[in-house]
Amino acid sequence: MDTLGKTITCRAAIAWAENSPLSIEEVQVEPPKSGEVRIKMISSGICGSDDHMLKGELLANFPLIPGHEGAGIVESVGDGVCSVKPGDKVLTLIIPQCRECDSCLHLKGNFCEKQDVLPCSGVMLDGTSRFSCRGRKIYHSFRTSSFTEYTVVPEIAVVKIDDAAPMDKVCLISCGFPTGYGAAVNSAKVTPGSTCVVFGLGGVGSAIVMGCKASGASRIIGVDINEQKFPRARALGVTDCLNPKKLEKPVQEVVKEMTGVGVDFAFEAIGQVDTMAAAWNSCNHSYGVCLIVGLAPSDTHLSLEASKILSGKTLKGVCLGDYKTRDCIPQIVTDYLQNKINIDPLVTHQLPFSQLHKALELYHSGKTIRCVLLF
Amino acid sequence: MDTLGKTITCRAAIAWAENSPLSIEEVQVEPPKSGEVRIKMISSGICGSDDHMLKGELLANFPLIPGHEGAGIVESVGDGVCSVKPGDKVLTLIIPQCRECDSCLHLKGNFCEKQDVLPCSGVMLDGTSRFSCRGRKIYHSFRTSSFTEYTVVPEIAVVKIDDAAPMDKVCLISCGFPTGYGAAVNSAKVTPGSTCVVFGLGGVGSAIVMGCKASGASRIIGVDINEQKFPRARALGVTDCLNPKKLEKPVQEVVKEMTGVGVDFAFEAIGQVDTMAAAWNSCNHSYGVCLIVGLAPSDTHLSLEASKILSGKTLKGVCLGDYKTRDCIPQIVTDYLQNKINIDPLVTHQLPFSQLHKALELYHSGKTIRCVLLF
Repeated sequence: MDTLGKTITCRAAIAWAENSPLSIEEVQVEPPKSGEVRIKMISSGICGSDDHMLKGELLANFPLIPGHEGAGIVESVGDGVCSVKPGDKVLTLIIPQCRECDSCLHLKGNFCEKQDVLPCSGVMLDGTSRFSCRGRKIYHSFRTSSFTEYTVVPEIAVVKIDDAAPMDKVCLISCGFPTGYGAAVNSAKVTPGSTCVVFGLGGVGSAIVMGCKASGASRIIGVDINEQKFPRARALGVTDCLNPKKLEKPVQEVVKEMTGVGVDFAFEAIGQVDTMAAAWNSCNHSYGVCLIVGLAPSDTHLSLEASKILSGKTLKGVCLGDYKTRDCIPQIVTDYLQNKINIDPLVTHQLPFSQLHKALELYHSGKTIRCVLLF
Repeated sequence: MDTLGKTITCRAAIAWAENSPLSIEEVQVEPPKSGEVRIKMISSGICGSDDHMLKGELLANFPLIPGHEGAGIVESVGDGVCSVKPGDKVLTLIIPQCRECDSCLHLKGNFCEKQDVLPCSGVMLDGTSRFSCRGRKIYHSFRTSSFTEYTVVPEIAVVKIDDAAPMDKVCLISCGFPTGYGAAVNSAKVTPGSTCVVFGLGGVGSAIVMGCKASGASRIIGVDINEQKFPRARALGVTDCLNPKKLEKPVQEVVKEMTGVGVDFAFEAIGQVDTMAAAWNSCNHSYGVCLIVGLAPSDTHLSLEASKILSGKTLKGVCLGDYKTRDCIPQIVTDYLQNKINIDPLVTHQLPFSQLHKALELYHSGKTIRCVLLF
């Protein structure tokens, strides 16, 4: 514990500006302040929201250390922290759970008011940063910043998990897996025998497919413009694969024709308004439910044909599977350990943190579902 | 029964073209064909959808006989009709229930594929009309056409009600009352202690208010640009009245300030995209539910800020309170007779059919919640 109370110097990835390549740098990580936790990262996924942020599609301050889908071990805690202790295995939480705000106290809310996604201030709850590089302040991302050997997060954005959890994989249960799986089983409550369409077959979309299959959906249509994703998608439960670029008519029309009446459940896991509209228009007009799981750029609008709303369709936004994160995430890890769910097929690649650029290449190429960075 | 099998000549209101005044004419009403029912109308409400149609905001064929919120007595039935018989008290149904289509067979669907609202063909299921005037074919509206002394409707668009029903009022249970009340108690499932906002305090909006109050909502904000509606709205349960024209900032911002966090449930009962957007933006961003009850003009679009969908809000279209009409409407009449619900406050005016123009004036002035036409 010779790092206790001291600033730690370690390696971290820094985005110096939007749309600029990440640079692995030596950074200083201050000790946790009151109500904060410093974590030695073990693994991190690369999630779509990280990519959105790096592309400048979210309101954020640069330079920053990206990443949020992290698994690690508590190095030290600040004053007043009681839910985790040094040595605990933990996950970082892009959506915290303060258990005090209106949303946390509401039966159905999970979008904690202490979240730092929309918009992303890049600073801790006290308004300051714990990171610096060559004397310059570096911002956090989503108050998690997992692309670093050490990070500091608020206690409300970290949760202890089972000691037996395999740390090279469970980072996916920090965000991507529950975001998708929960959208299907918790938000949509996909029904047995139902028809589903999933737009986007990356990490989140793949977890949606798993949730649809686990719920007994009889048909799961997967949509992606990258056909390399189709074999893995089929293995997870997709029954029909569509590449919109190879269709002669809009994908929603093809989905309507394939199903006759439109799907029961449509999921958008990309974060683009055109695919959101396609998902909405793929739904049955009377009882279809469209779940928006992808995070759209901050200045875009989804346009719905107004007179066609009345017939009964539902549009619902879903953040982190509608789970109250600190309450629910540990159980998902336990369910994984007990073989009730299996995230292994989603971890298609693992690379050391030093090969971050290769991992990002894999992410962008669509050759991976999730490439886990190992520290 | 000397009309049996014969064409009936009677008075009806005809809209010769969109945006032209209604004209009370002598019309011929043919006998019902197979699967059809001819009804002697006793009363009819004037509903917003009639007004939308007359203004040309819906796709429809003119000339037509408007009206759909009707109560009457079966005069005769065509071959194969078995759910009603001559002499039965009935309500006409703008949304039929064929019990055979995909939507009818689905647990949660009620937008029967045999509906003739979106779009409105104006003809019966066999493609022909039962109405003529001076030798010219006159179209039906919504396959109901209640502004006439006699009408013909498909059996699937009519339902027998309790013999004790007071026919000068229960026409409201044909459409307006269940559309609003059901949106609150059946679709939204408004929770005790919740906060609600209702855009539009006409017949449907008033029924929504009653549903919110019956569900135990602690605060019901009513929004209308016609302040004449406020006293009656308060009597029904509205706790705060807002006139957007008198506010210094957008109404959704005022609602957010009044509630601190936005409402639990927002209802739009007008049918305009700007009020739909205001309702959506009045909702709590994490758990708010926005119910679209009003029917928007056919060429308009609702625009939602895409990145703000993710935080958990729900948008749901609701047609006729999500009730399967033939299954559920009779029970609402019975509930009224058993004093479980009270539609009387909604029937603010009653006028003979000959005073249709005065009734329409009352409708447009907002001096009435519902003016019932009596035949």
